This record gives sequence, C-alpha cells and structure tokens, in this order.
Amino acid sequence: MNCLNTDQLISEQIRHTPPSFIRSILNTAADPEIISFAGGLPNPASFPQEALLASMERIVTTYGSRVFQYSITAGLLQLRETIADRYRKKFGLNLGADHVLITTGSQQALDLLSKVLLNPGDGVIVEKPSYLGALQAFSQYRPAFHPVELSENGMNPEQLKNVLQKPVKLLYAIPNFQNPTGLSYSAQNREAIRALLSNKNIVLVEDDPYGELRFEGGRLPYIGAGHLPGSVLLGTFSKTITPGMRVGFLISENKDLIKHLSVAKEASDLHTNIFAQYLIWDYLQHSDYEAHIASITELYRQQAQAMTEAIDRYFPPSVSATRPRGGMFLWVTLPKGISALSLFPLALERKVAFVPGDPFYINEKDVNAMRLNYSNADCPTIEEGIRRLGELLWEKVGHSLCRK
Amino acid sequence: MNCLNTDQLISEQIRHTPPSFIRSILNTAADPEIISFAGGLPNPASFPQEALLASMERIVTTYGSRVFQYSITAGLLQLRETIADRYRKKFGLNLGADHVLITTGSQQALDLLSKVLLNPGDGVIVEKPSYLGALQAFSQYRPAFHPVELSENGMNPEQLKNVLQKPVKLLYAIPNFQNPTGLSYSAQNREAIRALLSNKNIVLVEDDPYGELRFEGGRLPYIGAGHLPGSVLLGTFSKTITPGMRVGFLISENKDLIKHLSVAKEASDLHTNIFAQYLIWDYLQHSDYEAHIASITELYRQQAQAMTEAIDRYFPPSVSATRPRGGMFLWVTLPKGISALSLFPLALERKVAFVPGDPFYINEKDVNAMRLNYSNADCPTIEEGIRRLGELLWEKVGHSLCRK
Repeated sequence: MNCLNTDQLISEQIRHTPPSFIRSILNTAADPEIISFAGGLPNPASFPQEALLASMERIVTTYGSRVFQYSITAGLLQLRETIADRYRKKFGLNLGADHVLITTGSQQALDLLSKVLLNPGDGVIVEKPSYLGALQAFSQYRPAFHPVELSENGMNPEQLKNVLQKPVKLLYAIPNFQNPTGLSYSAQNREAIRALLSNKNIVLVEDDPYGELRFEGGRLPYIGAGHLPGSVLLGTFSKTITPGMRVGFLISENKDLIKHLSVAKEASDLHTNIFAQYLIWDYLQHSDYEAHIASITELYRQQAQAMTEAIDRYFPPSVSATRPRGGMFLWVTLPKGISALSLFPLALERKVAFVPGDPFYINEKDVNAMRLNYSNADCPTIEEGIRRLGELLWEKVGHSLCRK
Repeated sequence: MNCLNTDQLISEQIRHTPPSFIRSILNTAADPEIISFAGGLPNPASFPQEALLASMERIVTTYGSRVFQYSITAGLLQLRETIADRYRKKFGLNLGADHVLITTGSQQALDLLSKVLLNPGDGVIVEKPSYLGALQAFSQYRPAFHPVELSENGMNPEQLKNVLQKPVKLLYAIPNFQNPTGLSYSAQNREAIRALLSNKNIVLVEDDPYGELRFEGGRLPYIGAGHLPGSVLLGTFSKTITPGMRVGFLISENKDLIKHLSVAKEASDLHTNIFAQYLIWDYLQHSDYEAHIASITELYRQQAQAMTEAIDRYFPPSVSATRPRGGMFLWVTLPKGISALSLFPLALERKVAFVPGDPFYINEKDVNAMRLNYSNADCPTIEEGIRRLGELLWEKVGHSLCRK
C-alpha cells in the first residue's frame, strides 16, 4: 500500500490554479428545467453537421491513413496556408503558413504562451474583468497580475500607461465582443494602446474568438496584428464550425516566438488531432464559410436582441446591461453592494442560471455583476429566463432607485 | 513597431525544455529514398479505417450536435466506463469511470503530471535510458533527474534503493517493451520495485502504451496498478486504433490526484476532442478489439523477427541488440567509444535513419547506442535498411573483435 499524501506532493503552480467556477456550476445547473445563461456554448444550430459528415467521408477516402497517423507539431500545412490566406485577404495581414501554429483550442494557446513566457512574479496585464479561462491558464505560472479597467471604449489608457511603468511580459486583451462583458475597443482606443506598446518589449496577445460574429457596425483593425510584429493573434473554429473538435490557431510574425511555442506544444500533446485539422480544412475548401458565418451572426443578433429587450422589460431600472454588437455575452451590473454570487443559489431555485462576476477578476469577492450568455437558447427561452431573473432582481434590488 | 527581444522574455522552463531530436531528424529524413527506423509510427495497416468511417457516420447520425459541442474535462463518461470495465475484466483492476481521465494522447498525461507534481529541483526517477517525450515533458518543470540503470530484467533494484534515499516525488517507468530499448521488467523485478515503493510518498507513473502488443510470453502484472493506490497508469489508443486522434487516458485510484490533474487539464485545453472520444468508444462497442489487437501483434511479431534476423545476418558481432517480446522498438549497442550520433549523417548518406541514443539520456553525449523502430516498414524494407546500416557498421566498427 502507498496511500499518497497529495498535499505534500502537489506543485506550487497547481496550488495557485483555481478550478473553473463555470465548469463547477455547469454541473449544478444540469437540471433540464433550468434555463442556463451560464455557459459559453455556441448554438448547436451553428454546427454544419451534414457538410462535416460529407467532409469526413471525403478525407478518409482521399487521404486514407494520413488522417489517422501521427503528424507534425506545427499543424497541417494546408490548414495553416488556408488560415494565412484568409487573414491576408480578409484582414490585410501579410502572413504565410510559418506564422501559424495550430493549437488544441485557443485554451491551449493560452497555456503555451504562459509556459513560454511566464515565471513566478512576471507581470501580466489583463482586462478588468477578463476571460476566466485565460486567468486560469496564466495563474498556473504564478505571475503578478495588473488588471486594467475595461469600459465602453476599451482599456483605460491612463491606467495602462501607469502599469506599463512596471516590468511586464504579456498583455492579454479581447478587443472584440469581450468575454465576459460583450464590450469592444473603439478604433481610437486601439490606436492609443498600440502607441503605448510600440517601443516596449512586451508580447501583446490579442484573443479574437468572437470577431467574426459581428452583427452591428463595421470591422475595426487589430491592435497588434499587422502593426506590432511581436504581437500574437489567437483565433479558433470553435465559435463558427465546431468547438468539440478543439481546433484553434495562433498567429505571430515573430518566428522566434513561434519556435519556442512549438517546443512547448510538442511537450504538451505532440500535435493537435490531425483528423480534425483535415476536417476543418476540407470543410473550408468545400463550403461557403462566409455565408455560414453570416447565418450564425444573424441568429445571434436576434438572440442578443431578445435578451436586451427582455432586460429592458423585466429588470429593475437600477440594474444596467451592456449592448453587445457581436459575440455571445452581455454583462449585467447590479447596484453597488449587491453580490451576484449571493443571488446565484436563489436564481437556481427559480430555475435560471448565470455566472457571477467574481471569477472574471483577480481576487475580488462578491462583485456586483454577472455574465449572461445568449448564444445557446432560442428567443422565447431567453425571454422566459430573463423574466425569472427579473423577478428575483426586483425582489432583491428593485427598491434601489437609480442605476449603480 | 515592436520587434521583440525574445531572449529577454522567454521563461526559465522553456529554456530548459529540449526540442525533440526525433522530430527534428524526421524532417531531415523526409527524403522518400531513406528507409527510416527513426520514427515511432504504428503501421498504417493497423488503423481500422473502414470501421472508423462507419463509426463516424453512426455517431453523427445518433448523437448529432453532441459530438461537435463543448464537453466536460474528465472525458466522455461512456468511454471512461468502457476503459474501466476493460481494465477490470482483463487486468483485474478494481476501477470505475471516476478513476479515469481522458487525455489528449499520453503526452498530455505526462505534461499534466509534471504540472501537478513538479517544482524546480523536485526529484524524478527515470529509467536510463528513458522515453525522450517524457524527459522533455518533465524538463519543462526543471526537476532533479535521478536515472536508474535499465537492463534485461528491469530497473536496477540496488540503484533504485539508493536514489529512494533522496527526496523524490515521481518515478516514471515503462515496464512493457520499453521505449527506447524494447526491454521488459521481469515479474521479480516488478515485485522488488513495488516493495521498495510501498511505504513511500511517491507517485509511480507506469506508462503502458505497448503492453497489449505482446508477441511472446505471458502478461506480467502491473507494478503499481491494483497494488499501490497512489500509482498512476497511462494508456492510449494510439498504438492499437489511431494516433492521429490523440486519445489517451490516465488511471489512478487516488481521486485527489485525479482532481488536481483535471484542473490542470482544464487550464491546458478544456477537454479532449469529444468527437474523437465518441469515435473510439463507438469503435470499441461495434468491433472485435481483441482480434484487431491480435492482428497488429502478429504483424509486429513478423517485423521484429525480420529485423532481428537481418541484424544477425548483417551487423558485425561487436554490435549487440535487444530481442523484444512485444512493442515497436529494439535497441542496438555499439562497441564502447563509438558515438551513434557521429554515424547518423553517414547513415543518411546510405539512405537509412535511426535515432542515436543521446536524447534518451539526461545530459549524456555520444552514447554508443541507437533505437530502431520496426513497426512502420514491411519485412523486405526492414531487411534492406538493416543491410545498409550493417555495411556502415562493418566499415566503422567491424574491426572490433568482441561484443562490448
């Protein structure tokens, strides 16, 4: 017998890695009667199942054992070329396949960047609030977090300027339809950030899983990609084709960085599922991807509108919400002093779920905000869920007279 | 412009992570005229392509969007149950689905174990020589390596006893048809190791990718699994169904360890490709997996025999080789003082490739040994490759009169 004493054995890094709050509450919210705005799932209607099945048959027939064999760490050359080509044509970036590293979802890109860049105490700038999966990935390497306030226009440039006085290795931002807030950075804000970073030895990581899902307004240029050669752009097929296949990608003009990230990837999982890479590539060759994205975008536009209208109808006026122009989330702010976390079990009793704000912050408790996801429910369900949540909010905070 | 100075930015851990020698030489050996014994690829003939295509159609039709959606970190419940069931029936282990964590190939299991257990300077016992992908994964966390000599019977028990006096967190072993040597631990050696570990607070990681590919002799019991509740067993479908799908698994009776590994996995890639998990599970339900394994084993038995016979015929008597009873590799020892690495470019000139011994050791240079893989070439090709290598060896070391 050896019954381990794991407390003595586990590493410092895992002691500092919080389990994902969302993944724990997803278990709690498994009751099918609960209307959940807590997840971050794409609408299954957005998966091109028939086209993907046709692609499967085609790639097995055409490429045979190659889709089942070990493959190279960088990722399928054809897929990397297709991605480089798309970003060249659509976003004006001057890229080749060598600038692209295929990752096992964007989450792996966050893990690899952390591995390659972060030692304990290294400075990392994040939005306040930020994506919890990124905070979790960075936390593994015990950095010093420097959160910078996010508002309607983007990152607060004054605060950013201040934290840039400190030693910082990495700045992590989601400029389009941010998770969790749904906010986007203005063109002016992007320019201001770019200017602040232009002579710094800092890796800007621009995470863009939602950028293609814009249902209002025109595209804005990237902060780093195409402008700052040391920057990194993250993309994924999870929100536009299928998340279950875990195919994301990392783009950088800095080949030295790509080389280090490739070594880290090799040690992490050798390579991303090669069948999935052939599948996505074949799908992109044989389908009208732009039309498919347009149809998802229209779906999410309607769902976002349904949620926004229901919020206007059912929430007390002391509660405010962002109005996203794309993406999958909106952010609700409660009156000061009201903990969204404390409302969570009460909401579950009324069969509706959300993510309380806390896990999107570094060490903040009882935040007066929550994230709502609108991509994975139809409009009548969204209205009913917001109605239930509104009842609770009226009861708990309806007496507050004005917005925060 | 910000042109990064990556030297200032990269982490200590990535500085200490060697790129895989094999993956670099695989590029060198891309010339189709080269007979390569350097890789570790399963024979494509072992991929059940038609059955997998049928499974794809079935799971897309039956489970629809679920095979394309995000999923849970632990892995598909049905697949974990099937794995637990198989190890219960076939190997007498008392397991449930909760003891199984699905990983993105076994490589990810090595990465997760390192993340969860290792801080800089922590003691890790490895075989000498050991699997280079494991050395690479561990190296990321800068442990203190304690190599223990591996010979015909297994790990040297005296050396093991000695290093166990030092503070050690993890012992990594491949007891069946080891990579790179092809050697297996005897029943007696397994018992001796088990006894030495029985009252230690150390995680034994028993990596068993090749155990099912036995073509001679009877199965031997695991060292830890079923005996040491704190131990970890690694398995994979890469060698028996398809490596390209990246589906491996980690088994432990220690649920606390599984919990920490799950948090690390969540931060690493959220979950393993769920389509691939459904696919493997469906294949296992609808096919005769044992018969399939038997056919791969028979194929590799023939190929191993072809290599062994060709070595007897073409290599000088001063060169010795292991005689594997299963798995995919054998290990060739040259006379003392002869660097296999120095022979590598000469072998490439003669259109044959192998892996020189160096990367399988911690900080050893110009090792007088090489790894040969026999799973991915047919018998005539194996004979021709060994003939070419034999010519080179006669020329360089043929004058030595006796085996090392």
